[in-house]
Amino acid sequence: MYRTKTCGELRLANVGEIVTLSGWVQRTRKMGGMTFVDLRDRYGITQLVFDESNNAELCESANRMGREWVIQVKGKVSERQSKNANLPTGDIEIIVQELNVLNEAQTPPFTIEEQSDGGDDLRMKYRYLDLRRPNVRRNLELRHKFAFEVRRYLDEQGFMEIETPVLVNSTPEGARDFVVPSRMNPGQFYALPQSPQTLKQLLMVAGMDRYFQIVKCFRDEDLRADRQPEFTQIDCEMSFVEQEDILQVFEGMSRHLFKSLLGIDIPTLPRMTWADAMKYYGSDKPDTRFDMKFVELMDVLKGTGEFSVFNEAEYIGGICCEGQAVYTRKQLDQLTDFVRRPQIGAKGLVYARVGEDGVVKSSVDKFYSPEVLERLKQAMNAKPGDLILIISGPDTLKARKQLCELRLEMGSRMGLRPKDKFSCLWVIDFPMYEWSDEEQRLMAMHHPFTSPKPEDIPLLDTDPASVRANAYDMVINGVEVGGGSIRIHDAKLQEKIFEILGFTPEQAQQKFGFLMNAFKYGAPPHGGLAYGLDRFVSLFAGLDSIRDCIAFPKNNSGRDVMLDAPGVIDQSQLDELHLNVSLPAE
Amino acid sequence: MYRTKTCGELRLANVGEIVTLSGWVQRTRKMGGMTFVDLRDRYGITQLVFDESNNAELCESANRMGREWVIQVKGKVSERQSKNANLPTGDIEIIVQELNVLNEAQTPPFTIEEQSDGGDDLRMKYRYLDLRRPNVRRNLELRHKFAFEVRRYLDEQGFMEIETPVLVNSTPEGARDFVVPSRMNPGQFYALPQSPQTLKQLLMVAGMDRYFQIVKCFRDEDLRADRQPEFTQIDCEMSFVEQEDILQVFEGMSRHLFKSLLGIDIPTLPRMTWADAMKYYGSDKPDTRFDMKFVELMDVLKGTGEFSVFNEAEYIGGICCEGQAVYTRKQLDQLTDFVRRPQIGAKGLVYARVGEDGVVKSSVDKFYSPEVLERLKQAMNAKPGDLILIISGPDTLKARKQLCELRLEMGSRMGLRPKDKFSCLWVIDFPMYEWSDEEQRLMAMHHPFTSPKPEDIPLLDTDPASVRANAYDMVINGVEVGGGSIRIHDAKLQEKIFEILGFTPEQAQQKFGFLMNAFKYGAPPHGGLAYGLDRFVSLFAGLDSIRDCIAFPKNNSGRDVMLDAPGVIDQSQLDELHLNVSLPAE
Repeated sequence: MYRTKTCGELRLANVGEIVTLSGWVQRTRKMGGMTFVDLRDRYGITQLVFDESNNAELCESANRMGREWVIQVKGKVSERQSKNANLPTGDIEIIVQELNVLNEAQTPPFTIEEQSDGGDDLRMKYRYLDLRRPNVRRNLELRHKFAFEVRRYLDEQGFMEIETPVLVNSTPEGARDFVVPSRMNPGQFYALPQSPQTLKQLLMVAGMDRYFQIVKCFRDEDLRADRQPEFTQIDCEMSFVEQEDILQVFEGMSRHLFKSLLGIDIPTLPRMTWADAMKYYGSDKPDTRFDMKFVELMDVLKGTGEFSVFNEAEYIGGICCEGQAVYTRKQLDQLTDFVRRPQIGAKGLVYARVGEDGVVKSSVDKFYSPEVLERLKQAMNAKPGDLILIISGPDTLKARKQLCELRLEMGSRMGLRPKDKFSCLWVIDFPMYEWSDEEQRLMAMHHPFTSPKPEDIPLLDTDPASVRANAYDMVINGVEVGGGSIRIHDAKLQEKIFEILGFTPEQAQQKFGFLMNAFKYGAPPHGGLAYGLDRFVSLFAGLDSIRDCIAFPKNNSGRDVMLDAPGVIDQSQLDELHLNVSLPAE
Repeated sequence: MYRTKTCGELRLANVGEIVTLSGWVQRTRKMGGMTFVDLRDRYGITQLVFDESNNAELCESANRMGREWVIQVKGKVSERQSKNANLPTGDIEIIVQELNVLNEAQTPPFTIEEQSDGGDDLRMKYRYLDLRRPNVRRNLELRHKFAFEVRRYLDEQGFMEIETPVLVNSTPEGARDFVVPSRMNPGQFYALPQSPQTLKQLLMVAGMDRYFQIVKCFRDEDLRADRQPEFTQIDCEMSFVEQEDILQVFEGMSRHLFKSLLGIDIPTLPRMTWADAMKYYGSDKPDTRFDMKFVELMDVLKGTGEFSVFNEAEYIGGICCEGQAVYTRKQLDQLTDFVRRPQIGAKGLVYARVGEDGVVKSSVDKFYSPEVLERLKQAMNAKPGDLILIISGPDTLKARKQLCELRLEMGSRMGLRPKDKFSCLWVIDFPMYEWSDEEQRLMAMHHPFTSPKPEDIPLLDTDPASVRANAYDMVINGVEVGGGSIRIHDAKLQEKIFEILGFTPEQAQQKFGFLMNAFKYGAPPHGGLAYGLDRFVSLFAGLDSIRDCIAFPKNNSGRDVMLDAPGVIDQSQLDELHLNVSLPAE
């Protein structure tokens, strides 16, 4: 028996008990003839006391201990003289009678504290030490609880978790597949799944009715910020459902998660059409923690003055920043630089301050009459002391995205995006298609099995670009945490969709025939969605990166620097796989 | 709304309600002017009635429907004239008012019934239809519940489920790794984990204290019967524990699983040493559903008669088959053929029948005096009517294994191994090492981090082959469902173990240095175990093959015949990976 108690559970009520604890030495302090040791385990920290006058030898042993040594102690729980209100165990300490060093430790290359002195690279190389930091450990604890509560809720709703295979075949999805050479089938390769999309639809054909899986997925993409080559999805599918059924079930799941993990009662999720999301927020994943909606100003500012930029614009839109008329010229120049950055790409920024007297002072004063500026103020619903920021451009979509970035920046500056405030919504009625300049054709916005809205089906013949899909995203604080769609289960409709996407029947058969053939044996109406678990947990934990809630993440080159993976393999292993590596000349 | 009720929930109490159901047409029968349809979904079967005299057109539509069509009906719940006691919904039927064909279906290539007419290959090719069979579906339901109850129990015991990566590096374990070429790191490969062994030990170094994961593992082995290239483990590890702590926690888990899933209270698990298991059952995974223990007969039969086979034997052992003296000469010849099969490899079989008069008649009568045969009877504790079967040989281990096979065969013939009876035990005190004729050295029986029993540590210097390990297996009905060990956390002891295994310090550093280095920063005493989920669930479900509880299993060539994976990939994809395939000439 290595311990009778953990380092997190002793309280005043335990005073007088003889206990055994095990853990790591967090810190030692010598004060006079006393040595105080903070002993740490997963559950907390408990103070140990070694008294020289009581047992000099024992105290000397304690003084020899370094940081992160693993020890076992036996002693008496005692009330502290000076209590520590910051520690749950801060009322007590252990007067140590026996000390057993279980393992000595080299001094770790960085401090094991909430705020470590170790840089990112060093901490990742020694991730097993980084994980000892209580804040990092708490992220994994939250992730465990999060996944468990997802399972509990879905199990109660009659969902079955069904494992789908990891060694599958290449599927025609967006990103590149990781492939796995098969030794038993020389020259052939498995692929790792980008998602179990096809398999979960087959499970619906199989009559499983309600499926879910918390499952690893893989994409061999160049890793932009906050992507991982392997990531975890909460993957779900239901049969005999319409969109409303799915929204209800998964709104319920979110409610359960917020309540059980954060103690938060979230209100009914508002539903915003994709069109409104673009119009008012310039994004299909609006951050609705704060308002500051776009106001379209074409009526007010186009052709009503001599400002050629606006007169030539296809879009003029503004946001009203409450109480920010105090912004200095320098601050406004910074904002202009911000929107001009290549990542955002605006040409410029027009501002208008509403003075305490209600008079509007704008950077384009000279082009507009006071009446127009007054109309601007009214259109923006601006009050004295507010700041109006305006973006315009020749491309509505691009201008809206620029204004979106500006709105988020102002939201951050104004403290309107706290990490512990949550605003959830459904974005619905996505377009079926988006035009691809590159491919010069309409592309499926979600995936080619997504069902159009029934009332829009006639438009497939006349104006396919305007057809809306039975597709939906759940958005929280400007992050798309999940999304999905009702699938097409009707073969005729599916054929038509493929045709619009520009596939010949032969191409469609070659790419999607396998699933289409399965559907011929009786496919139920079905639909589903998938959440990004890493992202969802990060949001709950208030993290900046999904890496922080992954035990052993990979870096931007797809490397695990702790394991030093990937690595070279033996030629004999390559021979067995009938493979040769031919690296390009340096 | 596609349905207001499922096909499994309507009872007499619902009579008179108007309901909407959706599902698959299991069967249609015309009787006079009535058409009866069995409508099936995941939850059950409900009888639909179409009455020609009531609505001829509707009835005609129903008559056109084929097997496995997907339909939606609206109708009134009505009490049946002739009830079906075999169906939970057998008291009622639906008088259909509206019929909506959701999807027609081609006739499936085999019958969707518990006993299908489809062969194995055909059912695997159309696995999505095979899964519609209720018995197959029930296996997946059980698997879902099993995994959920594992998680519930371990969560309550303070375990955290932590996901470890799938893209890792090659580790020095037994089997071959599957490898994954890295596009971003040309010429380098990830490996898929054979188990998260190293990573879970690192999580203990990281202070996670109690870890588990239900996780896919991968082995590129030639697939013997009932192996899969990807399989699922319940992987667990604990810190600050001794063997007893682990046995307690996981005995509790088994108790919870048997109780919650099968309603069975299992008794405290007996603990059998590996030595006893080999001595009494000839196996480290004895089937203890029945007794029939081995009795060693060297004292009784070696040198006590003229039978040279026994006189030269190094092992003579027998089993007593109660009441089987009725076995005919022909049946005994069959048994002799059975033990002589190459897979078993015995030279022959000696039998002795105990007559109703208590007199022993044996196939080796002529070599032994009646007194010796009487002593045999007493040693075997045989009663009138019993059959004694005896195996001998020049190699004790081999002879015991042969006797083990014979015992299992007799157990099966005598009906002593019913699938719904469970007998669980711990096998403990495994040897640390086993001698490898091939490698001409001692090999780790479990893995090289397994801790020896403390009291056997002095033997490491004098007689390493006799050292017992802190290793344990959980065995149920002759199946090893899980196993594990206490790990070595002491660097000095680990060095000695490597030395005995024949590794130079350099080799040890090269193979295991990564983990050993992590241990230098303060490794807690730790240990764990892993269960094979597929096998554990199969046992609960009474299945002959683990395939039957896997949604999409692979065949003996590692192929998924439904997905047709693995397959060839484009040269462009190979080019991106800097790989060439060079198949051997045919």
